[in-house]
Amino acid sequence: MLYTRKQKIKFKHCDPAGIVFYPRYFEMINDTVEAWFDEALELSFATIHPDHGVPTGEIQTRFTAPSRLGDVLNISLEIQRIGTASLGLHLEAECEGEARFMTSLTLVYVDAQGKSEPWPDALRARILSDMEKNQ
Amino acid sequence: MLYTRKQKIKFKHCDPAGIVFYPRYFEMINDTVEAWFDEALELSFATIHPDHGVPTGEIQTRFTAPSRLGDVLNISLEIQRIGTASLGLHLEAECEGEARFMTSLTLVYVDAQGKSEPWPDALRARILSDMEKNQ
Amino acid sequence: MLYTRKQKIKFKHCDPAGIVFYPRYFEMINDTVEAWFDEALELSFATIHPDHGVPTGEIQTRFTAPSRLGDVLNISLEIQRIGTASLGLHLEAECEGEARFMTSLTLVYVDAQGKSEPWPDALRARILSDMEKNQ
Amino acid sequence: MLYTRKQKIKFKHCDPAGIVFYPRYFEMINDTVEAWFDEALELSFATIHPDHGVPTGEIQTRFTAPSRLGDVLNISLEIQRIGTASLGLHLEAECEGEARFMTSLTLVYVDAQGKSEPWPDALRARILSDMEKNQ
Repeated sequence: MLYTRKQKIKFKHCDPAGIVFYPRYFEMINDTVEAWFDEALELSFATIHPDHGVPTGEIQTRFTAPSRLGDVLNISLEIQRIGTASLGLHLEAECEGEARFMTSLTLVYVDAQGKSEPWPDALRARILSDMEKNQ
Repeated sequence: MLYTRKQKIKFKHCDPAGIVFYPRYFEMINDTVEAWFDEALELSFATIHPDHGVPTGEIQTRFTAPSRLGDVLNISLEIQRIGTASLGLHLEAECEGEARFMTSLTLVYVDAQGKSEPWPDALRARILSDMEKNQ
Repeated sequence: MLYTRKQKIKFKHCDPAGIVFYPRYFEMINDTVEAWFDEALELSFATIHPDHGVPTGEIQTRFTAPSRLGDVLNISLEIQRIGTASLGLHLEAECEGEARFMTSLTLVYVDAQGKSEPWPDALRARILSDMEKNQ
Repeated sequence: MLYTRKQKIKFKHCDPAGIVFYPRYFEMINDTVEAWFDEALELSFATIHPDHGVPTGEIQTRFTAPSRLGDVLNISLEIQRIGTASLGLHLEAECEGEARFMTSLTLVYVDAQGKSEPWPDALRARILSDMEKNQ
């Protein structure tokens, strides 16, 4: 995997069943994508917005085991494919060797009006360079 | 569609791009499933918990157009299939005729320890009765 | 009280102790202020933004009894005072006669750069008219 | 100040005005209290719950300047007073020397039924020891 970050499960993430409420996982997924842009691509979301954006077009997720208050997840991110204006990412989370969730999502690069736009050359080169490290 | 509810897009749902931040859609999706249990199956989440639960095992979502502050979405829910302990649901959201998102998800009926358990007979009968209205 | 709305306590609001996680109350408070602007002042947050805003400058809250999944709160809002660019509001929430929380907050009318600006005359007149109904 | 943690402002915290939506600050405040229990008092929220809890009874907050995407806040926590079952805390957040918010809150130690209970002796001793470092 290209990029990994730790995520501690906090009180705010957990529901009355004492496990992570699944919409909170999507906040963690977005945090991971945002941190990867910032740290691996060296392009912060604060720089992308408001002239451009990277909304999520689709996302498929499997939750394989519950996470509890105090668990520390390792969330890994890998590039799957790059298109003209799209980017396919795959993320997996595990805790002490147990898979918690896996997700595949597609981002789209858009202008301020939400219209898709080709990735800028420098950013595309950066993403391609990170994809090669994958192999 | 079996069940429909309106969802107004509020300030809290929107991001710096002025559109709904996608993890908030998953809160709306969960609210819709919760309201459907309550109103259509007459089984509130307060009654299910804490002795049982209905965690989401997997979910696949496409976001087809952005939603903005003040939009009123119609979110519809339809049963797709029922298994021994699982339930497949499909939801679609539109605003003034424009599709905003569609999602398919699988719930699992579990006991207090998170172990899957067959749907109770009365609840299964209720779900089957609602599925027939579908056709 | 000038304005009242019902708020059902949903699964997403509750923590591992089975009661509302207090930051979620602030979302409900903001939703109530937003709905009051929309319905009582006939000025939607979608119209105010992005040229202006009404950020919260200070807020004081007491939580007097816990709320649980399925509770239906009545949240009431009353104007306390209006300044050149500020507005003092008081909200109270109760469920079946039991007080749940009370809060006093101050909003400020600001321009797109976040600088305070006097309330527009028409809006001030509207707020003053609503204050009179208070008495 | 006794305890300090850094908090980066992420996309999920920000509203259509491009600044932190204030209910998200209360999540950050709760995260800080939770981290302080964990790191300074060596008592994790996972250990406290579900037999006990530390709900917030009241909280007073001033927001003195907006925070934007990418800002890194320093959030400091200081004990103000300890009662039989209560604990008064004061937190302040700043970014590059500019104050962003300050808050005073009172926690209560409660049993599983939400009834207040005296702080256990060992925990009280620990808190008192941290208070002395304050001076």
